[in-house]
Order: sequence, then structure tokens, then C-alpha cells
Amino acid sequence: MKKLVVIIFASALSFSLAASSHRHPCLLLSKDAVVQMKAVRGSVPLFDASLAEVIDNAERALEREINLPRPEHGGGGYSHETHKLNYFDMYNCGIAWQITGKRAYADRVKAMLTAYAELYPTLGYHPLNLSPVPGRIFWQTLNESVWLLHAAQAYDCIYDTLSSRERRHLESVLFRPYAEFIMNGTADNRANQRTFNNLNNHATWANAAVGMIAIVMGDDAMLRKALYGKDESGEVGFMRQLDVLFSPDGYFTEGAYYQRYAIWPFMIFAQCLQHNRPDLGIFTYRDGILLKAVDTLLQMAYDGQFMHFNDALEKGYDAQELVSAVDIAYLADPSNKELLSVAADYQQKVLVSDAGFAVAKAIAEGQARPLKLRSCILHDGADGSEGAFVIMRSPREGENSALTFKATSHGLSHGHFDRLNFAYYDAGNEIVTDYGAARFLNIVAKYNGHYTHENNSYAKQTIAHNTLVVDAKSQFQAKMKDASDSHPEITACSLGGDVQMVASREENAYPGVSMERWLFFADVPFLQFPLVMDLLRATSSESHCYDYPVHYLGHMIELSVPYSKALETMHRMGDASGYQHLWVEAEADAADGTTAYTWLTGYRMYSISTATAAGDKVFIARTGASDPDFNLRSEPAYILRHQAGPGSTLFASCLETHGKYDIKVEQSANLDRSCTAVEVTENSPSHISVRYSFKDGRAVLLDVDLSSDQIKYNVSYE
Amino acid sequence: MKKLVVIIFASALSFSLAASSHRHPCLLLSKDAVVQMKAVRGSVPLFDASLAEVIDNAERALEREINLPRPEHGGGGYSHETHKLNYFDMYNCGIAWQITGKRAYADRVKAMLTAYAELYPTLGYHPLNLSPVPGRIFWQTLNESVWLLHAAQAYDCIYDTLSSRERRHLESVLFRPYAEFIMNGTADNRANQRTFNNLNNHATWANAAVGMIAIVMGDDAMLRKALYGKDESGEVGFMRQLDVLFSPDGYFTEGAYYQRYAIWPFMIFAQCLQHNRPDLGIFTYRDGILLKAVDTLLQMAYDGQFMHFNDALEKGYDAQELVSAVDIAYLADPSNKELLSVAADYQQKVLVSDAGFAVAKAIAEGQARPLKLRSCILHDGADGSEGAFVIMRSPREGENSALTFKATSHGLSHGHFDRLNFAYYDAGNEIVTDYGAARFLNIVAKYNGHYTHENNSYAKQTIAHNTLVVDAKSQFQAKMKDASDSHPEITACSLGGDVQMVASREENAYPGVSMERWLFFADVPFLQFPLVMDLLRATSSESHCYDYPVHYLGHMIELSVPYSKALETMHRMGDASGYQHLWVEAEADAADGTTAYTWLTGYRMYSISTATAAGDKVFIARTGASDPDFNLRSEPAYILRHQAGPGSTLFASCLETHGKYDIKVEQSANLDRSCTAVEVTENSPSHISVRYSFKDGRAVLLDVDLSSDQIKYNVSYE
Repeated sequence: MKKLVVIIFASALSFSLAASSHRHPCLLLSKDAVVQMKAVRGSVPLFDASLAEVIDNAERALEREINLPRPEHGGGGYSHETHKLNYFDMYNCGIAWQITGKRAYADRVKAMLTAYAELYPTLGYHPLNLSPVPGRIFWQTLNESVWLLHAAQAYDCIYDTLSSRERRHLESVLFRPYAEFIMNGTADNRANQRTFNNLNNHATWANAAVGMIAIVMGDDAMLRKALYGKDESGEVGFMRQLDVLFSPDGYFTEGAYYQRYAIWPFMIFAQCLQHNRPDLGIFTYRDGILLKAVDTLLQMAYDGQFMHFNDALEKGYDAQELVSAVDIAYLADPSNKELLSVAADYQQKVLVSDAGFAVAKAIAEGQARPLKLRSCILHDGADGSEGAFVIMRSPREGENSALTFKATSHGLSHGHFDRLNFAYYDAGNEIVTDYGAARFLNIVAKYNGHYTHENNSYAKQTIAHNTLVVDAKSQFQAKMKDASDSHPEITACSLGGDVQMVASREENAYPGVSMERWLFFADVPFLQFPLVMDLLRATSSESHCYDYPVHYLGHMIELSVPYSKALETMHRMGDASGYQHLWVEAEADAADGTTAYTWLTGYRMYSISTATAAGDKVFIARTGASDPDFNLRSEPAYILRHQAGPGSTLFASCLETHGKYDIKVEQSANLDRSCTAVEVTENSPSHISVRYSFKDGRAVLLDVDLSSDQIKYNVSYE
Repeated sequence: MKKLVVIIFASALSFSLAASSHRHPCLLLSKDAVVQMKAVRGSVPLFDASLAEVIDNAERALEREINLPRPEHGGGGYSHETHKLNYFDMYNCGIAWQITGKRAYADRVKAMLTAYAELYPTLGYHPLNLSPVPGRIFWQTLNESVWLLHAAQAYDCIYDTLSSRERRHLESVLFRPYAEFIMNGTADNRANQRTFNNLNNHATWANAAVGMIAIVMGDDAMLRKALYGKDESGEVGFMRQLDVLFSPDGYFTEGAYYQRYAIWPFMIFAQCLQHNRPDLGIFTYRDGILLKAVDTLLQMAYDGQFMHFNDALEKGYDAQELVSAVDIAYLADPSNKELLSVAADYQQKVLVSDAGFAVAKAIAEGQARPLKLRSCILHDGADGSEGAFVIMRSPREGENSALTFKATSHGLSHGHFDRLNFAYYDAGNEIVTDYGAARFLNIVAKYNGHYTHENNSYAKQTIAHNTLVVDAKSQFQAKMKDASDSHPEITACSLGGDVQMVASREENAYPGVSMERWLFFADVPFLQFPLVMDLLRATSSESHCYDYPVHYLGHMIELSVPYSKALETMHRMGDASGYQHLWVEAEADAADGTTAYTWLTGYRMYSISTATAAGDKVFIARTGASDPDFNLRSEPAYILRHQAGPGSTLFASCLETHGKYDIKVEQSANLDRSCTAVEVTENSPSHISVRYSFKDGRAVLLDVDLSSDQIKYNVSYE
């Protein structure tokens, strides 16, 4: 039979579903693996624990009445959360049935699918009119896809328990109309069709969900549409997503937080394809882009938490998407033993699937190796030409710190106006921070759990980041369309040795202002911890006001110049571009020389010292102004302001990590900063020289030679 | 010889040092135990690890030059920290010498002690004139005592390596003058003498330090002064401290944070006495008060961190004092296997001493049992008659929450004006908080590491706590002397079963106002988590303004009434009694009925619902105003204000814990509060009835019968 099918479709360069798909289950869980799982139950700890959780969830599902409320609420609301619970219940019951053989689980899946088969045909569009791509059970089609992705797996698990008549009923009344809706929408509204045939993450979900139900139903034609788009041209569809959604370095343009989400349907559907269409060689496709994307995602984390940029919320290696991604990546490449330590140390659970089983067995056999985090440059853009996100890990062995630099393309609708932004992580804490998204996911009281207005008015604005703000306005006047037309250029990057560096140039964010930034991370022999040195230069033929903000977490310890704190009344810093959200806690005149600011985070001190001039201003600010609904977190910032005439302005700073503040034994040392002065000794188009002076007559001399296309730099010590 | 000595002193009801003290070491480490430790090296993991740390520290000490700077700086400053490092170095080298026999360690102790013998006679009082009890090496004598306590141990360890001439030199030039200074001060300044013969924690340190060097030197007369005071009357001195510094429940009046510090010299010196004066039966003295104090201290913690009240900073089971206390308590009573889990789970280290060795061996043998945290009432006062601190652990098995209530005496100079204060901990987080101390310990930039001015002007004031504030003034007008004359009375307490409760009355804090509070913690069957119910009543024949503050950690989610947020300008709430430190972030008119406020902490929601009347006001505030040096942390508070005529005012609230906000799988449930109304149906001198209504027509009816001395209460459900 297999052979026959191959012949039929070979001329169309398309293979049919492998024979295995005629056995069920066949998606993430295969019939053969189920046999093995049953045989070794009780002897693979991580798998047993994960299975116990699935069975426990399945048992709790059985305790509940079947409940399919009419669609009514958005994310976090009753009907929304109940239908989410339902697909998790079906998924858990399906798997529990496969492994335990307890009939009640299979019956529950059948009963619930049958109930959906009754409900679904009665639904129009969801009554909440919130999404341009509205769903029926859920307010947006994205959630419909997630429902189908889980329901397909549940159906696959109980497929063999159903009569062919029962299957026909479910497929004709529920699954095919459901898939049809995701693929084509309705005659009234073709938004879904546009999404299904688009190249973005929502499209990936739609392709994967439709592809998976197609595999279960054995529907080759439907699967081809999932893989190659409505017209099967391959210009859209799942395979094409693999070509364009990741850069050659495996970077997803929306950033780590959304890469975490995007990777989920990619890896799950890829696993299904590997099982059922091994001819596609999905995991080696485009030089192994999917495995590269998983590796890149793991690298974009600090202490297991994804780095915050763009519309990021708190997520880490323990997110359910990562459990799937790590397990499936390991089964695809069992030579990568570092994945095992992610599962063992951060996730402490595995998928109850072929992949999770392989991971748990390998961990039990002691094969796990520590995850190596490395300095890396992650180019953006389908061809890798649109800037990059750069991570510099501590140049000193054994120190857990990371300096990041963002000079990517805009990042679609989740991008922020943050070109040349940097962030710093040390000793387990975020030190110099990126606000991420202003959103309380799933909390109805907070704008229904959506991105709040303050996400646009603050979190996306340039002042919310650690990069230059010109004339108190955001890059590209905060217009996404304009920002999407260009990208910054990485002009130098060196990630090895005692001195790591990256440099970038941005010519478009502010018309008439050229921005350049050079960021160094150096293991200076006479300092307690490696030093961050930052040169941020703006060049313009006009006069401008330049702000240099540093957002941090921790408590203010000291400013090197006298300041005036708001005591009885406090005002906001501005009235637009995000400044309206900052309270001015204190103001000061910067020094004619060097201005330094120290804060405490955890058990260490952090001091930023900057070359300043008479007339420069200091602002110590805190978020929360112009925020009528308490949508912003209350977080501090340090801002230097320079009024510049025509020409070039250089903010030359160093960020020193110092001190040991051991409260267990009440010992402290090195709590005062070492840096005594920052002097710009040269700042010309072809050359920058900065002298960083430290206690005991020591100094770091930083020299950047810009006279040729190949930037040269030198760091020396006195 | 032993017999002879006993005969000589027996008539004075005093025993001499046991024979063991003529062998060295004899303090925390005994010669016999050293033999055993050497014999089993490498086979007791926790001991081996702790020993390795001591040896590592000793090695690092050897790498340093001997450095005894002239005294100059306060806590956190250079000379202060260097001399602290020196006593740790001597201590580590002394122990390392005993176990390893590496001569360089002993030589280092000798060399350093010799250097101190040169420096010490040249010193007058410390140049910083900051303490009423000034030291010589350190700014206060307290630190001198800590130095001696360590130096005595180091001297004990190398005693046998010194010639009798060398010992005579060190003792006559260094140790005896040093002890003399601590005991008597100088002719010019007898502050030390007063401290040594006082009954407080500084005296305990002085007694212990002098007693320990006396034991090492075999000086019975000096030891008697340490035990019984200058005149050996026993009216002061170490033994008397045991009578008065702890309540019969083992509660130290300054609270958990200082009990942690106070317990250290008690336990260390007690261990030395147990080794050298077993006749004293120190660990059974006063019904085993020292072991009770250790147990009580462990109970006053949440998730291993000591509860915050009075001048508390962050400290927990892993503090070095607790390592000593837990180890020594275990050696004194090896039947208490729960102590082993504190060492194993929270401390992961032991003392390199007889006690630490016993703990590590028992852990290696698998004897550890989980620490049981229980609801308890801890009476204050030497005879237990001065109020109490009450801890209610969750009435539901398996839930990690705690409700605390403070109705103790003032707590000396570290006390706050916080009578009838409550706090709440849940799911690993502080939910309703106590600010603790406004202090950055050891950070010179923050008022030299001392308590900041804001400790008095804010942290100690009543508005900084979760208790009634009358007419926007603090209890006792914030006068410690007045507060020390009285204490609140516990009127009822019941800690078993599904409903726990405590009640207290306070008549003195505000003249003419009687305050009563009843706090309940009930496992309500139809609620997701146990419910806190709070009745706070003020009765007066005059009109008053009553404020009901709730300080919390987390993010504001929802207020049930419309509010007006400070958008462009923000003002402080008042100009005195702590109100000057609060920014008013938002104001609202409370409901004529029930006003509710919800916040998010971690993965759960917390909603407080209060019966309010038309005219009541709501303030949402944040600390940080009138704070010119950024000494305050930025933390939020919710404050209800009621203007009352003569008579009785009852704040009836419930604090509901609800919701599951699981960001790993993006599932959330029960994020809305269940409480729909709080109604006071009766409030008379003899009776209070409150109806708490919840969703789905459920209700909790709370009835308090005050008609007899024996308060009766009833909680029922509809």
C-alpha cells in the first residue's frame, strides 16, 4: 500500500503519509513507544513522575462534569478558561488511556468530542469583537488552533476505540468544519484564510493544527495544504515558515519571549511529520533550522529565564512549550546531551510522548551534561542581514553574568523602539533591565489580560529602554511602519578572550542624527568583577537634547553629586513619548567631569560612572505617572541629560560590579566604587579614546580606531 | 586536683572549672572530639564540607599580610571590616590547626595575637564618637566582645603550641586588659561596667566573651564575674540573663530578628560551660530555657526567613548564629531530630565543633526529621505576663501560610509602635507585610550603616504597620518610655481545629480610646483557601479619625470603587507621624456598604473586603516621600479612613486568598474575589456579629459574645 501511494504522488514531489499513520496513536505518541512505556513503568523516574501528573490530571478531569459553556469571555474569563481546561482534559485523558488502558479515560475523550460536535455547528463568531481574526469558541482564531492541536492528539489516542461510524460523525461534524474554518474562515470573513496563508506565528499554529488533524484522519490533501498553503504552491504553509520565520542563526524576529511561543507548534508538528512523513527530513531541513532555533532560544536566557526584550513577560525553561521543544529536539538529535540537563534541572518533567520517554531514559542513565551558555551573535532576518541580538557572557570563568545588546530589525507588532539597547544580568539578578511588556496576562481586571494602553504609551517607547533618546522623542516617532523599513548595522563584534565587544550604527531612528554604540565587557585584572564599558555617540549637524537612561532593579545607594529629592510633591518628567509615565524622584546638576551612581541589587553593588559636562542634568525617576489604572510596575531609572550643539556627543560610561554584601555572616567588602574618573581624551570621526581611572592609580585605556572599515580597538591597563 | 578545687570553692556555692579545661581546646571544640574528627575525616559529608570551608578560609588568611589598621571607621568601613576579618581569620586558623596539624595556621594565630598585643595597649577610645558605650578597636564595645569571643577560641586552639612565657605575655598585655576593659571600662568612662552588669543582649555578649577567655586562661574568679556579675551576687551576669531575657515560652522581647542575634552568645557560652562547668546543668536551667528559645526562634519564621517585626532586617535559618544555635541545641538534646533538617535543608553547613560534628554524623545516618511548624502563642515578659506574639499556621493541611499577631510589650529600643499589628504570609511570599527596619546594614553611604532617621520617622511609627491609627498619630505619641510602661492584654486565643483565633485589648496606646482586635483564620469549606477575618474596634467618648492600613507586597489589581489616581503631580499624605513618608498614589470614596481591594503576589490573588460607610475614604499610598536620602524602600499600602463620632467603630474585614495564576501553562482560575459583601449586623459592648457574603449565595457568619470574661465565638456557614 505504501509503495502504491508513493508512486501516485511522486511526480508531484509529494509523499503521502507513512504507513505508521494508519496505526494510532501516531502523532507525538507512537504505538511502538507505548508498548515500551508500559513495559518499563516504574523504572524511569522522570517519566513516571510526568505520567503520574498526566494520570492525576485525567482523574481530576473525570471528577468534573462535562461543561461546554457558550463562548462569552476573553482570556482569563470563564468560558475561555473552561474551554482551555477542556482541551487539556481531553489531551490528558487520551494519553492516560493509552498508557493505563483505563476505559473511563477514553470514554471521557469521546464524550467530550461528541459534545463539541454538538456545540460547534451552532456557533457563529465569538461575541467579543476584539480580534481582527476572530474565532468561534475563543475570541481569536489562534486559540482555536491550539484547541485543535490538543484535540487532534486526544482523538488520535482514542481513534482505535471508536467505530468507523463514530469517527465519520466526529470528522464530518466537528474536525473537518473546524479545520475548514481555520483554513478558510467563512464566506463573510476570510481573515482566517489570510492568516492560514500568511508567514507568521499565527499561521504556523494554524498550519500545525490543521496538519495534525489531517494526519490523524489520514487526509493527504489537507496535509498538503498545511505544508504548502491553500494552493499547495509552497510559497506559504508550514515548510515555507521554516524558510522565513527564523534567521540562519535560528533567531525569531519577535524575540525570545515569542520565540518560546512560536517554537511550540513548530516542534510539535515537526515531531508528527518525523513520525508520519520521514521523507521530509524535517529536522535536517535548512541546515537543521529547528534544532538551531531551540538552541538559540536556550541561549537567550539568564538563569533559566528568557531575557526581557520586546513584548516579553516572565517565561523560562520551565514553560510548557520548552518541555516540548527540548524533548523533541533531543529525540531528533540524541547526541545533544546538554538538553537533558535542561529537562532535569529546570523542567523536572517530560512530555508523555516518544520524545519525553527518550529524555527521561537518558537522564536515568546519567547521560545529562551541563548546558553551556556562550557568548553569541544572533543575526536577525531571513537571510541574517538585518542586524543582530548579541549576548556576551562573563569573560571571567565561573562568573554568572551576561551583557546583551539589541540591534535587530523591529520585530513586527511585538517590537519596541529600542535600537542599540543594552541590558546586564549578574549574580542571578537583572541589573540593567528592559521593562518588557506592560501586560497582566489573563487578568481580566487589567484590560481583559491584553496588552494595556501603557504598553504603547510607555513600554514600547524609547525612554523605557537603555539607549539614546533624542529630543525626548522615541525612535521613528514610535511608528512601527517606519521602523520596519530599516535595521541597525552591526559594525564590529568580537566574542572571545578577556575583552568582548560589539558595535553598531543606526542612521534611521532619528532623522539627521547618526547613532553609534560600542559596548565592551572586559576582565580587568585589578577589578573585582569584569567591567562593562559603554560608548554611545550621537552626531548631528543640528542642536539636540540627548537623554541617556539606565533602568535598573535594586535600591539607590549613592549619587556622586548633590541632588534634590522630591519631598512633599512629585511631578512627572514630561507629557509624551513615555516621559509622562516617569515620576521625577530627584534631580541634580551633573559634575563637570565624572558623575557616578550606585545601586544595590541582591548582595552586590553596581556603579555607573559617566563623563559629564557642566550643564548636564541628572534625573532619578520611577515609573507610575499618567497611569490611571495602575498598569505599570513601579521601577526606578537613572537618566543623564545633555543639551548638545551641532557636532558629536559621546556618552562614555563604565558599569562596575563590586562589593560583597554577605548578610549571613554580616561581612561586607568593597562597597565603594573603584572608578574615580572617566575622561574622553579624543572623540573624532576616526578615533575615540577614553581613560577610565580607578583607585590606587590604576586605569583602563580604551581606544577605538575608526579610520578604516575594519574597526580596531585596544584596551590597555595602567 | 579536681577534687581539691571543688573542696575549696564548694562553700561559696561555686564550682571551679572542670578538669577538661586544663586540656586545650576546651571551648566549642574539645580535645576528645578532635581525635574523632581526625579519625573519620572524609566520611561525614556535611562536616567535611564545613571543614573544607574553614580550611579554605584559613588558607586565604595565610595569603594575606597581617594587617591591623588604626581604628578609624564605623560598620562597613575599612578598619572595622578589617578587624572583623582578622578575628574570623584567627578563628578559622585556630580550628584548621587543630584538625590538620599544619603548623602555619597556629603560627598565624600566634603572630596575629602578638600583633594585637602590641596594638591594643596603644589604643584609646575609638575616634568615631557614635556609641554611648564606645569601644577601642571598634566604634562600640559590642564589637569588642565579639572580637574577644572569637579570639578566645583561636587562643584556645593554639594554647598548647605556646610556651608559658608566651601565654603570660598575651594574657597580661592583651587578654586581661581587654577583658578588664569590657568588664569595667576606664576610670574616665564606666559605660562598659554598666553594660557588663546590665540585663540585656549587649551584656550577654560581654559576659560570654569574658567568660570564655576566663575559661581558656583557667581564671575562676573572672569566670564567676561573667556568670554572676561584678560583685558575684548573681543579680546580674550570664545566669541572671537566662532568668530575665527570655519569657517562659523562650521569647526574647526585642523580637525574632534580635533573638537570632541574642541567641548566639547564649548558646556559644552555654556550650563552653557545658564542657567546662557541667555542674551548672546549663541546658536544663530554668526548665531548659535555652533550648526553648532556639525552638521558639525556629517557629518565628516563614520559609526559613524570620518574620519581620520591630527593627527586623532579612535574616533566616541560614544566618551564622543559627548554625551555632541549631548545632549546639542538638548536642544538648540529641532526641530533637527536627534540628537536623534545619541544618541539612537550610544551612548546609555545621560548626566545626563537637556540636556540628554530632549534627553532621546524625544527618549522614539519616536521622533528620522534617521541622514541624505549629500555631503557637509566645508570651512576652520574664514571667510571661506581658502580652504575646501569636502565630497561626494554615488551618488546612499542606497549605504553607501563616497569620501573625503582635500584642507584646514594647521590645526595648528596637520596638515599634505597632500594638495589635497583624501580618500574613502565603505561598512562599510576604503578603501583608511589616516594614521592619529602615536600615542598610554595613553600607557606609547609607548613614554609615546605622538605623537611618527614617527608622524613627517612618518604620517605627504606627502608620507603617497594619493596625489602627487614631487621629493620624502614633501610639504613645511614639514615645518609647511611655510605651514601655504597659502592654496589651491577650483576651482570647484558640489555636486548634478549623477555626483559629486570637483576641487582644489595648487601653493605653491612645488616651481615651480603647482598642480591641479579633483575628480569625478559618478553613471555610466552600473557599479555595482558608479565610482571614479581622475585627478591629475602637471605642471612645470623643470623636476621632481612624485609619486602617494594610501594607502589602505585590501589584494592585483592582479597587471595587472608582478612584482617582495621581497622574501629573503626586502629594504626600501628611506631615508627621510617618504620614509624611507616604505618597498618595490614588484616592477614592469608599462604598456605602463594602469596599474591596485586590492585589497580585506571586501566583495568587489577595482581596481584602471591608464593611465601609458613606464618607469613608480610601488611600492607595507608596513609601518614599520626605526621604531626602533614598533611605526608604518603595512599597505600597492600602488605607481606609473613617471619621467617627463618639462611640464604637468596627472595621470588619476579610482577607481572601484566591486564584491560580500558572504562567508555565498560561492557565488561570478564580482570579475574581468571592466575597460580595461584609455586613456588621451587631456591634455592642457585649456582642459582635458580622455576615461575610460570598458568590453563589454562600456566607460566613461570625459571632463574638463578649458578655462574660470568657470570650465566646462562633463561626458558621450558609
